[in-house]
Amino acid sequence: MEYRDAGVDIDAGHRAVALMKSAVESTHGPRVLGGLGAFGGLFDARDIGDAPVLVASTDGVGTKTRVAARLGRWDSIGHDIVNHCVGDILVQGARPLFFLDYVASARLDPQQVAAVVGGCAAACRAAGCALLGGETAEMPGVYAPGELDLVGTIVGVVDRAALIDGAAIAAGDVVLGLASSGLHTNGFSLARRALADLDWTAPHPDLGPGISIGDALLAPHRSYLSEIRAVQAAGVTIRGLVHVTGGGLIDNPPRILPEGTAMRLDRAVWPVPPLFTLIQRSGDIAQREMARTFNLGLGMLVVVPADQADPAPAPLTALDGAACGTGGEIIP
Amino acid sequence: MEYRDAGVDIDAGHRAVALMKSAVESTHGPRVLGGLGAFGGLFDARDIGDAPVLVASTDGVGTKTRVAARLGRWDSIGHDIVNHCVGDILVQGARPLFFLDYVASARLDPQQVAAVVGGCAAACRAAGCALLGGETAEMPGVYAPGELDLVGTIVGVVDRAALIDGAAIAAGDVVLGLASSGLHTNGFSLARRALADLDWTAPHPDLGPGISIGDALLAPHRSYLSEIRAVQAAGVTIRGLVHVTGGGLIDNPPRILPEGTAMRLDRAVWPVPPLFTLIQRSGDIAQREMARTFNLGLGMLVVVPADQADPAPAPLTALDGAACGTGGEIIP
Repeated sequence: MEYRDAGVDIDAGHRAVALMKSAVESTHGPRVLGGLGAFGGLFDARDIGDAPVLVASTDGVGTKTRVAARLGRWDSIGHDIVNHCVGDILVQGARPLFFLDYVASARLDPQQVAAVVGGCAAACRAAGCALLGGETAEMPGVYAPGELDLVGTIVGVVDRAALIDGAAIAAGDVVLGLASSGLHTNGFSLARRALADLDWTAPHPDLGPGISIGDALLAPHRSYLSEIRAVQAAGVTIRGLVHVTGGGLIDNPPRILPEGTAMRLDRAVWPVPPLFTLIQRSGDIAQREMARTFNLGLGMLVVVPADQADPAPAPLTALDGAACGTGGEIIP
Repeated sequence: MEYRDAGVDIDAGHRAVALMKSAVESTHGPRVLGGLGAFGGLFDARDIGDAPVLVASTDGVGTKTRVAARLGRWDSIGHDIVNHCVGDILVQGARPLFFLDYVASARLDPQQVAAVVGGCAAACRAAGCALLGGETAEMPGVYAPGELDLVGTIVGVVDRAALIDGAAIAAGDVVLGLASSGLHTNGFSLARRALADLDWTAPHPDLGPGISIGDALLAPHRSYLSEIRAVQAAGVTIRGLVHVTGGGLIDNPPRILPEGTAMRLDRAVWPVPPLFTLIQRSGDIAQREMARTFNLGLGMLVVVPADQADPAPAPLTALDGAACGTGGEIIP
């Protein structure tokens, strides 16, 4: 792996590496060969499947980094980027193999970087995913003072026969929703603008006991890995999965729908969490813009044949946060 | 693949995707499944080796992005990041399979993003590497106006038996150097400071006919893939490869050397290109700092047994830019 800096203060990079070394190594199972310091991370890929398809995705957490900076809390965005990436390949049926991170700022704070990467490592451990490498870069003049960017790349695998691509989705299928834990990693520029004049640190009456706006905004992106695995293990046929990321509930479903189909969701059916309502009210944001920007409480959509959803089978209703009654269906 | 924006201006991201779609798809061989727009990129990994080890690396191009911004030339840094990543896994013996990019700025300029990603695509094509996915992010307040960051992640493969890890390096081995094309992706903060007061656009007498400082600084990172492949194909035993990246000629060799060995290079033997001399003179930089920051003309070091280097075999002397006489050797 390469945990090295690309910028001017080589020692800041080295100090950050020392701080996060044990956290990173705690994610390494027997497939990870070699140690920190090599140019590339090594992952033994023997017998990873009969007809293995590697599924890869790279992403950031958007300006959720600015919320972290405003509140000085750096551990949660590591969970965000890992769980976001896990979700992006899970929707194609893949389980994660390894993850790499990139953290950059105008001036590296080793403690801050170690907190971010420590969050990545914890989320990787939970997902059974190796944190195989990363890079820290100090880029004076490129980043605004006090800000940082966090980029993650994940590689997973799925047997070709188990690839989920939405091709079998047909009119009459039912759309189930899995609850989000908040904004996840999307819509932060709009949310920050809408909430700019409010107190982010005191508990807010709309958000539940003791929960501040800052707490709600920084709530880590939820991982749906174990939930989807449980559904599959119970023999439920999943025809399609939508990760509700940038573009919200409007732009994401079409990414998997076959020609000639559309998805209808009934917003009256599932509970829109109070954070979204607060954002909409504070920012005077139109419904359409809300739905095109945010997940509105549904972080993952699961498309199943109607006979498997009514009545909803135990593995779905038993899932923590599963909001089976989205009123969602596939229409011609 | 996911070419989607994480920020506020969804349409800028979409316009950039439209501009770069054909360039990206031109890198796709039969192993790439599906098209642009899916959540993750799909790479068919059947029969990629008997005992395949995946080798992965993520990196940036440092503040070479600021040189690109100052000169308004955006195509070359795409070549830089791909070739940098190709080199980072090549030193472990791996050939590239696929690459993913991330481009972020305060405000996305679709033409600029398309130029950057177009450079990535051209370099991927040359390396036989699929540009499998990417992300564009608009992050107002995180990036300084007019600046951008470019991050690349590469995944390659090597059969376990062909893994190059430096373990067999022994005292008496010879170190050969392959010429760099310039600074590659390291040392730009120091170089920019040293050269700040000079004219970057007029030809500079030290740099060769018609070559400006800007030209020399932006010269794309060289790829060593075909050169190293040719050496291997000729049956030369490569005991170790050093990619001379951040940390220059001082910090990189120890990353592959076994305990109890060191590397000695004789700087009098190979020609240090005039750009480095100009940087050193203009910035009044000490020799040690130069060697710890820059590649000083050697982008890749090749460690071979002495009997294969003296006399140097035809495949090595015939290589374009191979500077076999580095005076380099492994010492106890």
